[in-house]
Amino acid sequence: MEVGFIGLGIMGSRMAANLQKSGYQLTVYNRTPGKANDLVAQGAVEVQTAAEAARRGEVVITMLSTPQVVEETALSADGFLDAMQPNSIWIDCSTVNPTFSRQMAMEANRRGIRFLDAPVAGSKVPAERGELTILVGGDEPDVEVCRGIFEAVGQRTIHAGGHGMGSALKMVFNLLLGSSMVAFSEGMVLGEALGLEQARLFDILSNAIVIAPFVFGKRGKIENENYDADFPLQWMQKDLQLASVSAYEQGVPLPAVNVIKEVYAQAIRDGLGEQDFSAIYAYFRRGLKV
Amino acid sequence: MEVGFIGLGIMGSRMAANLQKSGYQLTVYNRTPGKANDLVAQGAVEVQTAAEAARRGEVVITMLSTPQVVEETALSADGFLDAMQPNSIWIDCSTVNPTFSRQMAMEANRRGIRFLDAPVAGSKVPAERGELTILVGGDEPDVEVCRGIFEAVGQRTIHAGGHGMGSALKMVFNLLLGSSMVAFSEGMVLGEALGLEQARLFDILSNAIVIAPFVFGKRGKIENENYDADFPLQWMQKDLQLASVSAYEQGVPLPAVNVIKEVYAQAIRDGLGEQDFSAIYAYFRRGLKV
Amino acid sequence: MEVGFIGLGIMGSRMAANLQKSGYQLTVYNRTPGKANDLVAQGAVEVQTAAEAARRGEVVITMLSTPQVVEETALSADGFLDAMQPNSIWIDCSTVNPTFSRQMAMEANRRGIRFLDAPVAGSKVPAERGELTILVGGDEPDVEVCRGIFEAVGQRTIHAGGHGMGSALKMVFNLLLGSSMVAFSEGMVLGEALGLEQARLFDILSNAIVIAPFVFGKRGKIENENYDADFPLQWMQKDLQLASVSAYEQGVPLPAVNVIKEVYAQAIRDGLGEQDFSAIYAYFRRGLKV
Amino acid sequence: MEVGFIGLGIMGSRMAANLQKSGYQLTVYNRTPGKANDLVAQGAVEVQTAAEAARRGEVVITMLSTPQVVEETALSADGFLDAMQPNSIWIDCSTVNPTFSRQMAMEANRRGIRFLDAPVAGSKVPAERGELTILVGGDEPDVEVCRGIFEAVGQRTIHAGGHGMGSALKMVFNLLLGSSMVAFSEGMVLGEALGLEQARLFDILSNAIVIAPFVFGKRGKIENENYDADFPLQWMQKDLQLASVSAYEQGVPLPAVNVIKEVYAQAIRDGLGEQDFSAIYAYFRRGLKV
Repeated sequence: MEVGFIGLGIMGSRMAANLQKSGYQLTVYNRTPGKANDLVAQGAVEVQTAAEAARRGEVVITMLSTPQVVEETALSADGFLDAMQPNSIWIDCSTVNPTFSRQMAMEANRRGIRFLDAPVAGSKVPAERGELTILVGGDEPDVEVCRGIFEAVGQRTIHAGGHGMGSALKMVFNLLLGSSMVAFSEGMVLGEALGLEQARLFDILSNAIVIAPFVFGKRGKIENENYDADFPLQWMQKDLQLASVSAYEQGVPLPAVNVIKEVYAQAIRDGLGEQDFSAIYAYFRRGLKV
Repeated sequence: MEVGFIGLGIMGSRMAANLQKSGYQLTVYNRTPGKANDLVAQGAVEVQTAAEAARRGEVVITMLSTPQVVEETALSADGFLDAMQPNSIWIDCSTVNPTFSRQMAMEANRRGIRFLDAPVAGSKVPAERGELTILVGGDEPDVEVCRGIFEAVGQRTIHAGGHGMGSALKMVFNLLLGSSMVAFSEGMVLGEALGLEQARLFDILSNAIVIAPFVFGKRGKIENENYDADFPLQWMQKDLQLASVSAYEQGVPLPAVNVIKEVYAQAIRDGLGEQDFSAIYAYFRRGLKV
Repeated sequence: MEVGFIGLGIMGSRMAANLQKSGYQLTVYNRTPGKANDLVAQGAVEVQTAAEAARRGEVVITMLSTPQVVEETALSADGFLDAMQPNSIWIDCSTVNPTFSRQMAMEANRRGIRFLDAPVAGSKVPAERGELTILVGGDEPDVEVCRGIFEAVGQRTIHAGGHGMGSALKMVFNLLLGSSMVAFSEGMVLGEALGLEQARLFDILSNAIVIAPFVFGKRGKIENENYDADFPLQWMQKDLQLASVSAYEQGVPLPAVNVIKEVYAQAIRDGLGEQDFSAIYAYFRRGLKV
Repeated sequence: MEVGFIGLGIMGSRMAANLQKSGYQLTVYNRTPGKANDLVAQGAVEVQTAAEAARRGEVVITMLSTPQVVEETALSADGFLDAMQPNSIWIDCSTVNPTFSRQMAMEANRRGIRFLDAPVAGSKVPAERGELTILVGGDEPDVEVCRGIFEAVGQRTIHAGGHGMGSALKMVFNLLLGSSMVAFSEGMVLGEALGLEQARLFDILSNAIVIAPFVFGKRGKIENENYDADFPLQWMQKDLQLASVSAYEQGVPLPAVNVIKEVYAQAIRDGLGEQDFSAIYAYFRRGLKV
């Protein structure tokens, strides 16, 4: 199957490589040149515009940084959407809000193009290993057509519902990650202040069911006090702000998330924005008299 | 081994029954009479004062409602502590704050009595099945002496550290339970507002690692909208208040917990105090336009 | 002086009437017809498009509901901005965010039009009496030219700074109003719970300096439990959300405001959105056991 | 009139001096010696125990640091309460919680002693000038007897209600002071981030009614960035914690205060505890990109 791939950043380049390994024929485009060399060496065709990348594909995948970039790449004067083949499928893997995904679906549909929003859960290493979780919104038949693609880049595909539901689910996931990391940090720091040792607490909590299991994957960073970013703290704050705005639009009060996002904002103010979001634990730990 | 057991409420009566099954000889006391009949039928001796219950035991176990009740039962004019045998062990399974546990340890020690704080994680059903987790603070040799007791009432014993550390760990557990339940509720309700179905979300989250696993044990209550209390919401609010006060004493800021405890307070104000603490989800769900 | 006036809602119609009384010759436009009759009876000319209203004025005033409406009225194909006379002044009295005001200033300037953002503090009655406070952003000479206009509609003009600073100041004012109303409510309700009487507390606080004086203007509403809206609670929540988003853009953490806006959101959920924002006191009072 | 005065700290020593100037004959006691020299030079009698100070007075005044100290000084084996003359009056000016004041009233009453809780609003300078506000709880006739005393130390006496109502009112005052200072700080810092100048904002707000007037008394500290404590930030945090606990006891949710007290806790963690509580503005200002 011919696939156009637009956006070869940290995530996109690894996803494209896995597609290639699974036998997909890629036409690739990245705004900044020089990211496609490895892919080209393995048989991909690099082109100079997003529209060219889109022209040949039965499927076009985008993995871009923000809604603004997606919109410009798709819909500007030389955008790729008008270049797509009739009845082909656009898969947007970028992390955006559900409302935006629905708008893109509408733009695609009225051009006779099918659309899936398909943001991914997982960061650099799972992307490299093809172990992402794909959160998909769109029509079932379209998801079926793309199943091979999703299986090439991920180990699990969740079809959450219609257009925008993939993006909605991603928002819920990140809300839970950000909130749980703060709950964990407050619990740990209180325990430590009361005399419990960090390593002992970690051991104990690892066998309990009182905290989200992903935090145990952060244990190495925490114990080494080395918070190299898998997912930067400032991105988490941005995603919680996004959730706050979506909740406002839906008329849903979220008192805890709105305080938690300000805790991340305080940590950014204090210089932790580019570290992994688990560094929020280090922010809380400052309160500890040692 | 002879055991004095003081406090035959929902938890205490079930724990005492399991001790009896494991061959411990019980002398039991409860402030309100009539709770000991089943135990007596199986061979326990019921007595009229806490002091009498304490007199014969090599170990005395208390399972009482609040620090005030523990203090009165142990230390008042006819309190049991002065009646205990030299070098015997008092195990306090009540949920209290770490400072209080340390005070009781001191009171015991200066009378030549050994002390363990040993609150339990788990509610009615695990108590009945002997599947509690025992969170123990105190000296290792004393824990060893009591290991048979802990194994009779629970499936897991965690020796968290010195006096008070069992109570500290219980506080951390409940902080995590209360915070995670709110994080889950905010995530679910935002997802539902955005169009994701409750059952579908539950299925998806059950296979993810983004939320504390205990919440899936609440799925039945949530789907049936029947929040019979395993652990009443107003107790959760009380425990979060306790954590807030302990954090204040330790000089540790806890912004999220302090907001979350007020959300539980609002739910109590709106009539949900006697329901299970997972009813906080129902409180959030009121924000949903259906 | 010839003035074009666009937007004859509750506020705009009253401001226009005061301009007329002060001798300004008005050309007026409102999207919904029938709002200009009184003004026409006093000599105003009503026209059918915003552009026509703008064509004759040395000054054009807009008093519209949202940034979206301002943008459309000014900049769409038949927008008024292109119809304005060279070097004339556009005064936007609408409540919008500072970034938006700066954009409008740029749009105006590159067409050779001068711009002032001039939102007003005060609601229906002060508008009627010409007792508004005008919060102005823009160049000093332009403010001077318009001083007569501001004095016709208000009793105080604050030149806060360059373009956008009027809107910034309005945002600060509303943040303070919304926060102070909640602080007052929490203080009152705690006092009442402790046994202090409402009327007595009001009397005492009226002579103290511990709370923003505007709350005493709400005493009638509170004592009569009649919260007819001068400024609806849901508008306050909208303005606090706006402040939250602006603070996010500026990288400024606002923990209190972010919780307070959720309290207003909870009050809206519970049915108080169309009442005056001082009804947040009634929301808190539900927590009172009477 | 003979007055026993117990507690000669920053506040107490100044209040005692003003009583002396008004002609009251003082017998004074302070736990730490050497604080009474000036008073003795003006005719006061210094004694070695609180009980002695109490013995001669028709009125006994206490101005102590915490409920614990009050309780010990009054009720311990050599406490002063048993030394007081029948039908004399104990005025407790210490800042304590309402429940504690009611307990002290009961202890006094059953010994045939009358009681007033009378904490003061105002700090060092007003204490020196006799310009405090006295917040009184107790019976009207007792307040009348003591009116001369209150007028000697303050310029305003507020009889808030029965026993404990003085302490309740003091709690409300401090809640409002602490909350308003944070509201002001968030508003200022957002305004400054948006481009408004600090001095200009101060000028503007001074003429508005959107913030508690006491903050303008803090302008000097803020502009000089010199936060010498009139009322230390850590005392404010303590009082907000006290309000939080009282609200919990009364079943009143206070979401804003509970977040605000954590902001003060964060400021203490970051080293601002001994500065004036208005230094919370400096804490917020760290978020400002200058």
